[in-house]
Amino acid sequence: MTLETWRSLTPEQARRRLRDGYTGTTSGWCDGWAQANLLAVPREQAFDLMLFAQRNPKACPLLDVFDPGARSSARFQGDITTDLPAYRVYERGELVAEKTEVTGLWRDDLVAFLFGCSFSFERALTEAGIEMRHTTAGRTVPMYRTTIACEPAGVFSSSMVVSMRGVPASRVPDAVRICARYPAVHGAPVHIGDPASIGITDLDTPDWGDPPVLRDGDVPVFWACGVTPQAMVMESRPEFAIAHAPGRMAITDIREADLITP
Amino acid sequence: MTLETWRSLTPEQARRRLRDGYTGTTSGWCDGWAQANLLAVPREQAFDLMLFAQRNPKACPLLDVFDPGARSSARFQGDITTDLPAYRVYERGELVAEKTEVTGLWRDDLVAFLFGCSFSFERALTEAGIEMRHTTAGRTVPMYRTTIACEPAGVFSSSMVVSMRGVPASRVPDAVRICARYPAVHGAPVHIGDPASIGITDLDTPDWGDPPVLRDGDVPVFWACGVTPQAMVMESRPEFAIAHAPGRMAITDIREADLITP
Repeated sequence: MTLETWRSLTPEQARRRLRDGYTGTTSGWCDGWAQANLLAVPREQAFDLMLFAQRNPKACPLLDVFDPGARSSARFQGDITTDLPAYRVYERGELVAEKTEVTGLWRDDLVAFLFGCSFSFERALTEAGIEMRHTTAGRTVPMYRTTIACEPAGVFSSSMVVSMRGVPASRVPDAVRICARYPAVHGAPVHIGDPASIGITDLDTPDWGDPPVLRDGDVPVFWACGVTPQAMVMESRPEFAIAHAPGRMAITDIREADLITP
Repeated sequence: MTLETWRSLTPEQARRRLRDGYTGTTSGWCDGWAQANLLAVPREQAFDLMLFAQRNPKACPLLDVFDPGARSSARFQGDITTDLPAYRVYERGELVAEKTEVTGLWRDDLVAFLFGCSFSFERALTEAGIEMRHTTAGRTVPMYRTTIACEPAGVFSSSMVVSMRGVPASRVPDAVRICARYPAVHGAPVHIGDPASIGITDLDTPDWGDPPVLRDGDVPVFWACGVTPQAMVMESRPEFAIAHAPGRMAITDIREADLITP
C-alpha cells in the first residue's frame, strides 16, 4: 500500500489494517482525522493523571478518556488493545515489553487516556507552506527532555518533553499563529530560539527521535510533546501503564476540523 | 460600596470583603478577572466528575481542580471555604443547607472543582454593544432544564441546564462569534430560537433565576449553564457535595484575557 492509499483511509478502515498486523508509523494516515497518544493507567491513578492533564494542557491535551476497563469510546470506535501498530508496557516506570497487541494485558480497572498529537498541527503548517524538514528527510521529529517543570498532580510529576522543528525566521510568527488555533494538539510553541535556556545542551542528540534538520536561517521552535506522559510514567513509576509506541498512534473518530478554535 | 468600587477590586481584595461577611451577588465584581462556579465532591466521586466535565465541556468548562482536601490553588489563592458570599450543601442530592461559610463542613477528601461562568462572556458581549437585558433590568438571567442530554460519566448523568438571553436578530451572529472564543466559559450558544425543541415549554417560568426580558425583534439564544453541575448533583445523588449559591461565585486569580482563544 502506498502513502496515498493510507492518506485516504477512513479511521475504521485504518484500524482494521492495523489490527491485521501493520506495525509501522501512522504518520500521514487518514487525512482529516486526529491521531492520538495513548496512556492507560489503573483507575487508582486515573484521577491524578486527569488532574495532571488539566494542569498541563500543552503537554497533555486531553482528547478523550474511556470508562474504566473500556476498550472503545464514542471518539475511538475501535479496540484500543489491538488497533494501534505497537504498544509499550511499563511496570513501576520500567519499560518491560513492546507488543503489537495488548488484549491479554488489559484489565477491568485500566483507564485509557487519548492525548492530542502533533501530526494534526504539522498538517496545518505544511498546508501553510511551512515545510516539515524531518518529514521531507524521512526522519522522526527530534524530542528532548527540558528543564521546564510540569505542574505536579497527586503521584505524578515530570519535566516537559518538547519536539523541535526548524522554521524559517520569517515564518515563525505564522507557525505560532496557526498552532495557537489547535490547543487540543499541543497549541502554540512553548519556546522559540536558544535551546540552552530550556536545558537542551546538544540539539544534535535528541532524547527520542532522529537528529534535527535545520537549514540556514531556520530558528529552532519547540512545542510541548505527547511523549511527556511517558516521561512522567518513567519518573513517577505507577504500578502499571500501557502506552503507544512512538509514532504508532491511535487513529480516532475525531475530525481535525473540530479541533480548531474559532 | 458602589458597583464602581467592586468593579475595580483585585481578586485578593474582593475575597477579603466576601470573607468579612458580604453575601450578595458577585456580578460586576473585579473587572478582568474570571469568576467561577464551585462544586466540591468527595475524592471517591472526583474522577467521575472530572470525566463528566471532560465529556461535557460546554456545560462544565473546567477552570481548575484543587488537590484533595485543599482549600486553595495557584488559580484561587484564597480560602474556598470562606471566600464565596454563600454556599449550598447537598447530601445524597438533597439541598440540606445554605451557608455563608463551610469551614466546619470541609473534609480532607473533598475535591473542589471550579467551572467557568457566564459573567466573563457577558462582559465581552456588553463591550460589543449587545445589551444584557436582564442586567439592565436588575434581574438574574433565566435558566431552564432542557431535554439536551449530557454524556454520562460513571455515577454522574444529567440533562443540560441552559441560560437564555434575548439578542436582536441582527446581532445573533456576533454573539455566536464572540462567545465561541471563550470555550472556558461555556463557549458558543447551544441553541438559537424555538425553546420547545429543547424541551422548554414556557419561557416565562424559568427553573432558576428571573423571568426573561425580551424586546421586539429579539431571538432567544441559549447557552450551556454552570448550574448544570448542581442539577447533576440533584439527579445523581452523590453522598456529599458543596456548591456556590446561584450568582455568588468564586473570584479567581485567572485573567479573563487568558481565557480567549487566539
